Amino acid sequence: MSAERKSGLLRRWRERMPPEVGNSILSLGEGATPLVELKGIGARLGGGRTVFAKFEGANPTGSFKDRGMVVAIAAAAERGAKCAVCASTGNTSASAAAYAARAGMACAVLIPAGKIASGKLAQAVAHGAEILQIDGDFDDAMSAVRELEGDGDAAVVNSINPMRIHGQKSAAWEICEELGCAPRVHALPVGNAGNITAYWRGYLENHLSGGGGLPKMLGCQAAGAAPFLRGAPVENPETAATAIRIGNPQSWDGAKRAELESGGRFVAVSDSEILREQKYLASREGLFCEPASAASVAGLLATCESEPEFIPEECLIVCTLTGHGLKDPDIVGVPEPKIHSADADSLRKAL
Amino acid sequence: MSAERKSGLLRRWRERMPPEVGNSILSLGEGATPLVELKGIGARLGGGRTVFAKFEGANPTGSFKDRGMVVAIAAAAERGAKCAVCASTGNTSASAAAYAARAGMACAVLIPAGKIASGKLAQAVAHGAEILQIDGDFDDAMSAVRELEGDGDAAVVNSINPMRIHGQKSAAWEICEELGCAPRVHALPVGNAGNITAYWRGYLENHLSGGGGLPKMLGCQAAGAAPFLRGAPVENPETAATAIRIGNPQSWDGAKRAELESGGRFVAVSDSEILREQKYLASREGLFCEPASAASVAGLLATCESEPEFIPEECLIVCTLTGHGLKDPDIVGVPEPKIHSADADSLRKAL
Repeated sequence: MSAERKSGLLRRWRERMPPEVGNSILSLGEGATPLVELKGIGARLGGGRTVFAKFEGANPTGSFKDRGMVVAIAAAAERGAKCAVCASTGNTSASAAAYAARAGMACAVLIPAGKIASGKLAQAVAHGAEILQIDGDFDDAMSAVRELEGDGDAAVVNSINPMRIHGQKSAAWEICEELGCAPRVHALPVGNAGNITAYWRGYLENHLSGGGGLPKMLGCQAAGAAPFLRGAPVENPETAATAIRIGNPQSWDGAKRAELESGGRFVAVSDSEILREQKYLASREGLFCEPASAASVAGLLATCESEPEFIPEECLIVCTLTGHGLKDPDIVGVPEPKIHSADADSLRKAL
Repeated sequence: MSAERKSGLLRRWRERMPPEVGNSILSLGEGATPLVELKGIGARLGGGRTVFAKFEGANPTGSFKDRGMVVAIAAAAERGAKCAVCASTGNTSASAAAYAARAGMACAVLIPAGKIASGKLAQAVAHGAEILQIDGDFDDAMSAVRELEGDGDAAVVNSINPMRIHGQKSAAWEICEELGCAPRVHALPVGNAGNITAYWRGYLENHLSGGGGLPKMLGCQAAGAAPFLRGAPVENPETAATAIRIGNPQSWDGAKRAELESGGRFVAVSDSEILREQKYLASREGLFCEPASAASVAGLLATCESEPEFIPEECLIVCTLTGHGLKDPDIVGVPEPKIHSADADSLRKAL
């Protein structure tokens, strides 16, 4: 096997995968995503702090969801399920549909009636998923999905499926492998809280099996959807960072455990901070992520401002950028540019 | 360095990179993209043929352009250029803007006046590029870009920049490394013809430096934009596969050399074949690519039908999928789905 082969999670981390996946080598080439230094963010933090982005937008369907989905679909196929089911209008449905197609399974995506407008569904449709509008809201769709859970033919692949967390731990393992140790602080966006749960378990397993240390987990929420800051679920969460617009996180306990055991924090950032850092990352660091992803960087900057001792000087920090900017291109306003004549002189002036 | 580290092209292939890049380690984590078996396509070809997709949509900006762009921008930065310039409305502008941002350079994207509608520009805008509308058509924009070429401060990063080809060769090296040899046939979309030129040079260099064999190159064009089939440029090329809608390819000689030296072929496929295979790849193999990418698979299938002896039985074949489906989500029609009640029984019936 070559030095740079992207063999997929199930091959790369076979010994750490749950027995439910059997000998499956299901893969679309997920994982092994870029770890890219953010020199501008490091300079803004100051104090010799070094910051890396784990750019999960480079996964096959453009988000970190592929890590958990490959494990969930492999386990479902292994037990003979015929159809993957999820309630989602976003990254989960795209990933579920892709891996179900790969595994030769059908896929059904349940969405609340009237929410069909989302362009995010294009991926799920392309991957052949059946879209079912549910007469009700997202909670009704989720309840319907839960009721299907016991069904032998259907496999629910929302984050209530524990296989998802198993797969998502792999991002922490990759980071430790590449850095040679865990970072001192790990910042990531928190919506449903499955990812912070998974990262923390991943770091723990890695540390217990061979050392490498443990980071403090910094869970970053949008101010309009910040149940962990409030200490209770939020009704009608609102934020431009749609991927973390969640008021009642599925993985509450896992996230609280990550906070307490790591000596971590939750932090809330405004939409304007999120969108400002999304723009900074794209225009200054070269990484175009979806808005929710930038909450990690915005939360890191805010924490370093309000509580600098939480982020020691001269330390290594990793921020997860959870999804690609192409997931939500409409957030970028394309201006109507001026018209120039085509001769080089006038162009030189314009440049 | 770890087994799965995505260190970027300039680090990974330093000894094969041109001297113009100096010691640059510019990177957004490009390259090391997934090589995924297409079992359904293999079965459709029959005869024990094994087909892999090189999924270039997993590059940082979502297309293969990142391989050439990292080298072009590194070389430009090395010689002190302040601004990257290109004429493009698509993948080239996205990649140029991203790597220019990474390198701390400005970026100007020239487009023909009236072509601003394209949503593809969102990436270039997000990465901070200045968009200049040119009073003229694409050829006028390209002429203006060429005139800027001699300018010390500006670096033209369209495919007339030879650094681009250097970087794009790396995809062939990765394939040889992963398969342990070159494939017998390599199919890829041909528009401006830089990529087929680069792959062939990459395979040649690899073979001359250590064996591994050489593939036959299969250049796949859209029927409405097929100058290599016609033997001459095409006026007003037309195809839904916008990334290869090019009538007068920049790298004509390189592509002809690839054809002749490899014992290869050009093949033209209709838009309906292209879109059918795009749909097949997404819904049956799990890979969502932009339309142009699917020309490689459509061309392979058509060639195996019309000239089966060109594709020997029991052989290894690689198809390049040049860009991510998220680049052009509008090509996927999202239907208005039926509304179902939220109880599990009626959902079971619907599934």
